[in-house]
Amino acid sequence: MGILLKVAYDGTNYAGWQIQKNDITVHGVLHDAIKQILNGSDFSLLGASRTDAGVHALGQCVHLMPENLNIPVERLPYALNSVLPKDIAVLDSKIVSDDFHPIRDAISKTYIYKIWNKAYRNPLLHNYSAHISKGLDVELMQESCIHFVGKHDFAAFCATGSSVKTTVREIFSLKISNSNGLIEIFVNGNGFLYNMVRIIAGTLVEVGLGKINPNTIPAIIASCDRNKAGRTMPPQGLTLIEVEYNKPENGRQMPPIRSFDFL
Amino acid sequence: MGILLKVAYDGTNYAGWQIQKNDITVHGVLHDAIKQILNGSDFSLLGASRTDAGVHALGQCVHLMPENLNIPVERLPYALNSVLPKDIAVLDSKIVSDDFHPIRDAISKTYIYKIWNKAYRNPLLHNYSAHISKGLDVELMQESCIHFVGKHDFAAFCATGSSVKTTVREIFSLKISNSNGLIEIFVNGNGFLYNMVRIIAGTLVEVGLGKINPNTIPAIIASCDRNKAGRTMPPQGLTLIEVEYNKPENGRQMPPIRSFDFL
Repeated sequence: MGILLKVAYDGTNYAGWQIQKNDITVHGVLHDAIKQILNGSDFSLLGASRTDAGVHALGQCVHLMPENLNIPVERLPYALNSVLPKDIAVLDSKIVSDDFHPIRDAISKTYIYKIWNKAYRNPLLHNYSAHISKGLDVELMQESCIHFVGKHDFAAFCATGSSVKTTVREIFSLKISNSNGLIEIFVNGNGFLYNMVRIIAGTLVEVGLGKINPNTIPAIIASCDRNKAGRTMPPQGLTLIEVEYNKPENGRQMPPIRSFDFL
Repeated sequence: MGILLKVAYDGTNYAGWQIQKNDITVHGVLHDAIKQILNGSDFSLLGASRTDAGVHALGQCVHLMPENLNIPVERLPYALNSVLPKDIAVLDSKIVSDDFHPIRDAISKTYIYKIWNKAYRNPLLHNYSAHISKGLDVELMQESCIHFVGKHDFAAFCATGSSVKTTVREIFSLKISNSNGLIEIFVNGNGFLYNMVRIIAGTLVEVGLGKINPNTIPAIIASCDRNKAGRTMPPQGLTLIEVEYNKPENGRQMPPIRSFDFL
């Protein structure tokens, strides 16, 4: 049996999602909680997105394959939340088809990148946003979004040293809101390269600071040169909001898994 | 010379505002930062509100009386923020009249109390809200607000054991918003008794759970009996938003000190 869990976490105190030998990770803590609830029964666990240290999630999707399940699937969130620490929560659990794969079958992912754009830092957002003290031209940043949308080779927006088969990805939507100094960059795409959202956010910040002209973005993308794009923004501004699945080919239609809105 | 500082802090890691011998407090850490910046010059420091452990602030007002000031007043936030930890920030500094008093001269204070009202906890709000998993009837809570507004003896909404001259306070405004499960209670009044906002929030929660009828609130207030009002909500949901001053009698009009909106 395959089960898909929707998991939210505050990444502040974790060395990222991926299990590691000597560091506390979200995967590791969730693994221990499941082990406790499944009472020794064997299982496998695979997340849709390997979020970095400090990155948050409201809709991480995690595929759990237990040998045996001694409690009803719909009770799993209650059971797991009772043993998980406060900064991790399971929000949903669903049975999925046997051939489901949480990475391969994801049709899109949505991230938000948050920037606090006032002269002084906001202590209530210090773990949940990047602070840019110089005023950003948000309209110019918004005008730049259209250049990223579509199918492109995003090699210029990929951390150097990462090995992937192809650096082509499709961005379906990129939007920026601004509310009293809290700038939020929403991006939805079919997949993201390593650090891609944080480098897009950094490039938009350079636009907002007047250091990159929006009209040069197509050339930056075309260059496939990491040095042409903007800085990599810090991890704590990033939140994985949602992973969407839809797999009509096996006759099983997964409902889109929507995370709650985060304010 | 008197200086009024506007201070924001994440109260999670502090034993409240008030300086204490064996605990780390916001007052204590701010005191040390000022000592460092003033380079040994003597000073006094008094906050407008003694927030409890875990309570946050975006607009705490702090009166600083330095013997000597070796930097321009408007540079104080930059200087202090450079030595303060990330979870405390000075947002503003202004010169005030010699007879200014941060507690006596406050004409109103505004607090927000946040409740996360979904079945499962929100890890990104675990330090910034109270979690109520049962669905609250927010409309009923909103209808209850009017009963609190006005000048009342709020003895029923004061933690037992606190000694004050009078338990009469005036609430100017009490409003509740609800956005996708995040319920925010905004309250503005001329002053608040110990735990008063958290007990009002707790009473509104009992209304939302159907345990207290809104029509009985006037009788609860009139009873002056702490046992008649609702529970004391936990500290982490509470944020001091603003302290307003206006002192026309000494010919000096302080502009209202408005905190930025928090989202």
